[in-house]
Amino acid sequence: MIRRLDSRSPDFQSQLSALLAFETSQDPQVDLRVAAILADVKTRGDAAVIEYTNRFDGTSAESMADLELTQEELKAAYERLPAEQRDALTAAAERVRRYHERQKMSSWTYEDEDGTLLGQQITALDRVGIYVPGGKAAYPSSVLMNAIPAHVAGVPEIIMVVPTPRGERNDLVLAAAYVAGVSRAFTIGGAQAVGALAYGTQTVPAVDKVTGPGNAYVAAAKRAVFGIVGIDMVAGPSEILVLCDGATDPDWVAIDLFSQAEHDEIAQAILLCPDADYIAQVEASIAKLLPTQPRRAIIEASLSNRGALILVRDLDEACAISNQIAPEHLELQVAEPREWVQKLRHAGAIFMGKFTSESLGDYCAGPNHVLPTARTARFASPLGVYDFQKRSSLIQVSEAGAQKLGRIAAVLAHGEGLTAHANAAEFRLK
Amino acid sequence: MIRRLDSRSPDFQSQLSALLAFETSQDPQVDLRVAAILADVKTRGDAAVIEYTNRFDGTSAESMADLELTQEELKAAYERLPAEQRDALTAAAERVRRYHERQKMSSWTYEDEDGTLLGQQITALDRVGIYVPGGKAAYPSSVLMNAIPAHVAGVPEIIMVVPTPRGERNDLVLAAAYVAGVSRAFTIGGAQAVGALAYGTQTVPAVDKVTGPGNAYVAAAKRAVFGIVGIDMVAGPSEILVLCDGATDPDWVAIDLFSQAEHDEIAQAILLCPDADYIAQVEASIAKLLPTQPRRAIIEASLSNRGALILVRDLDEACAISNQIAPEHLELQVAEPREWVQKLRHAGAIFMGKFTSESLGDYCAGPNHVLPTARTARFASPLGVYDFQKRSSLIQVSEAGAQKLGRIAAVLAHGEGLTAHANAAEFRLK
Repeated sequence: MIRRLDSRSPDFQSQLSALLAFETSQDPQVDLRVAAILADVKTRGDAAVIEYTNRFDGTSAESMADLELTQEELKAAYERLPAEQRDALTAAAERVRRYHERQKMSSWTYEDEDGTLLGQQITALDRVGIYVPGGKAAYPSSVLMNAIPAHVAGVPEIIMVVPTPRGERNDLVLAAAYVAGVSRAFTIGGAQAVGALAYGTQTVPAVDKVTGPGNAYVAAAKRAVFGIVGIDMVAGPSEILVLCDGATDPDWVAIDLFSQAEHDEIAQAILLCPDADYIAQVEASIAKLLPTQPRRAIIEASLSNRGALILVRDLDEACAISNQIAPEHLELQVAEPREWVQKLRHAGAIFMGKFTSESLGDYCAGPNHVLPTARTARFASPLGVYDFQKRSSLIQVSEAGAQKLGRIAAVLAHGEGLTAHANAAEFRLK
Repeated sequence: MIRRLDSRSPDFQSQLSALLAFETSQDPQVDLRVAAILADVKTRGDAAVIEYTNRFDGTSAESMADLELTQEELKAAYERLPAEQRDALTAAAERVRRYHERQKMSSWTYEDEDGTLLGQQITALDRVGIYVPGGKAAYPSSVLMNAIPAHVAGVPEIIMVVPTPRGERNDLVLAAAYVAGVSRAFTIGGAQAVGALAYGTQTVPAVDKVTGPGNAYVAAAKRAVFGIVGIDMVAGPSEILVLCDGATDPDWVAIDLFSQAEHDEIAQAILLCPDADYIAQVEASIAKLLPTQPRRAIIEASLSNRGALILVRDLDEACAISNQIAPEHLELQVAEPREWVQKLRHAGAIFMGKFTSESLGDYCAGPNHVLPTARTARFASPLGVYDFQKRSSLIQVSEAGAQKLGRIAAVLAHGEGLTAHANAAEFRLK
């Protein structure tokens, strides 16, 4: 069911490319429909949001009040939860908060030898919007992972949007919003929700940045409003790469591959291992465990479509292939993970050692689970506190500094033909 | 010539909105032409790049070798410069490098009470492309401001593209590439250059991120390839906001406004001041100094189109208006700038005190001159070393940690209906 590849085979590189290929380019039809929705929301505000929500989510809202969740409703959902879920949510939030506290940036300044002050002032964003998917699967953990970094950064207003198809609310999602410190929450989704956040409506306040994953319409809408507001990233299907020396229980590796594959028929789960016998054991575990899984149809489709068990020459080659793949989630199931991790250049998150299942990171280890997909870990980072803070450069040139810097700047400005730039420096010369 | 506004006037907010309004939305015609060029470059590689370059830049290249600058050519340009320019370039590069060294991020890890390791591993990008405009004005300072942060971050390969319309090369630009440590340089521009960097061609290596400003075609191309590669931002027209208490020589403020206005007819220069007499003096200085400026036509157009002298009630109100504008460049020409700077939440760079002309920051103060425009300082930062580094989360859960975290994760995963996620945690329980 799942394909097996061998890095020694002469056409391995082309097989790998085919495996990784994923059409990330935009669908022009989706773009056009999204552009129309955004324009309509920009012009008509609340009325357009209500219409699209009723049409796409099968609701019958008459006003925005019908589409807003009050703080009382969020709190009530939290209190309604079984104690076990309430405790798990609180414990997860606490661990996520503690990790993210370490990401907080601080302002700094220094003075050079002329008494000129240079520095960087850090401020939080004023208001952010977090998009929480509500369709196929509603993920309370996504609420924590988006809202807590914003909260830790010091963002005063966090606006959540979460579609509720056919009006079905998810208590865990609402409770997570309560635990994470969401300021306001609207039960809207799709391009209309992104438009409402970017432009503002009579009821939904315009935000400065929109984060969080969504379907193709949400992704297209985020791309379109990028520049008017900030966005985190345009997320693709989820991926896991397990790099294993063959000493982990093969059932554990099989279930870890499943845990990514169960997200989506186009999710990607790959194993790299130098031990052919072990690969066969994992394959047997996959066959054995698959019937136990409620989401086995999705897992099977994902593993056949985009999964692979890859035999490699050794762990060094495995690291090189991993760097080429630049996976969202990377499990490093080897004896000395702290040594091998230094060879890994591109990955959203690295799960080290056999006890670190990726699912622990999804929920409660502490680091964020919003991670760069589709090879973007080559240049992008996990969502973090730094996404909700920004920097302003600070420069206070002393009179002595103005003499020295003014001469340098004037020469270069004249060289660029920008006389006013040169004059501005020259006017400050004694 | 330049409009005067008063914050006390009842329609001030609508006047201010009209002043700041700028059509940032994409032009569908430009998008379509860019999409065609990108698709062609992706398919045909070098051949397409050569054709578009000859067509748009009026060159007659026959092969990519004709469009590549060798390290010897860059070095020769540096050595050809007059000593004064060579020294200014070197001094500016040294100061920019020193400031950016302070932005470098380092990896960190910590262990929690169960012996679980958590952290963040920092790596540099493998290869980046920097776009240097070559049309209306070629800016060597932009080469320094893009390449030096990448170099400081530890990026091994920095690929520069700079169009040379009609084959005209700019020695200062080439010399700046030499000083800044550019690895390879191509005399190509426009959407075809962005496409070559994003997809790679037979000759131009594919990069992981493209930074640097450009015209509408470059901006549209960057937006289109975002996701395949990282991009820094989509830059709009340049802006300066001068916030002055009325104690700076009015000629200095006038020339500072010019220094932004001279970039472009759609650049924006605004003064905020609580002293009406002083505003009149600045207006007189503008009238006096304008005839001395070689670029006076551009300055005059920019000041009439988008400039303003705004009378405010006091400096507190000036700070509030400044936060609303979120300017790219903010001059804080007040007696105690270090106190007032704390009230400023949104600005790309803040130039404090009367000796700090914005032009010093453009060239050599140290901080970057690639800054967020068009109100994006609400969520974006100056270009920096951090744009050329990225983070991977590290998690190594101990056996004890797996028992505690596994129970939390399993509860939440079952709550989300993700059985494989839950099982992956449960398999690690004793």
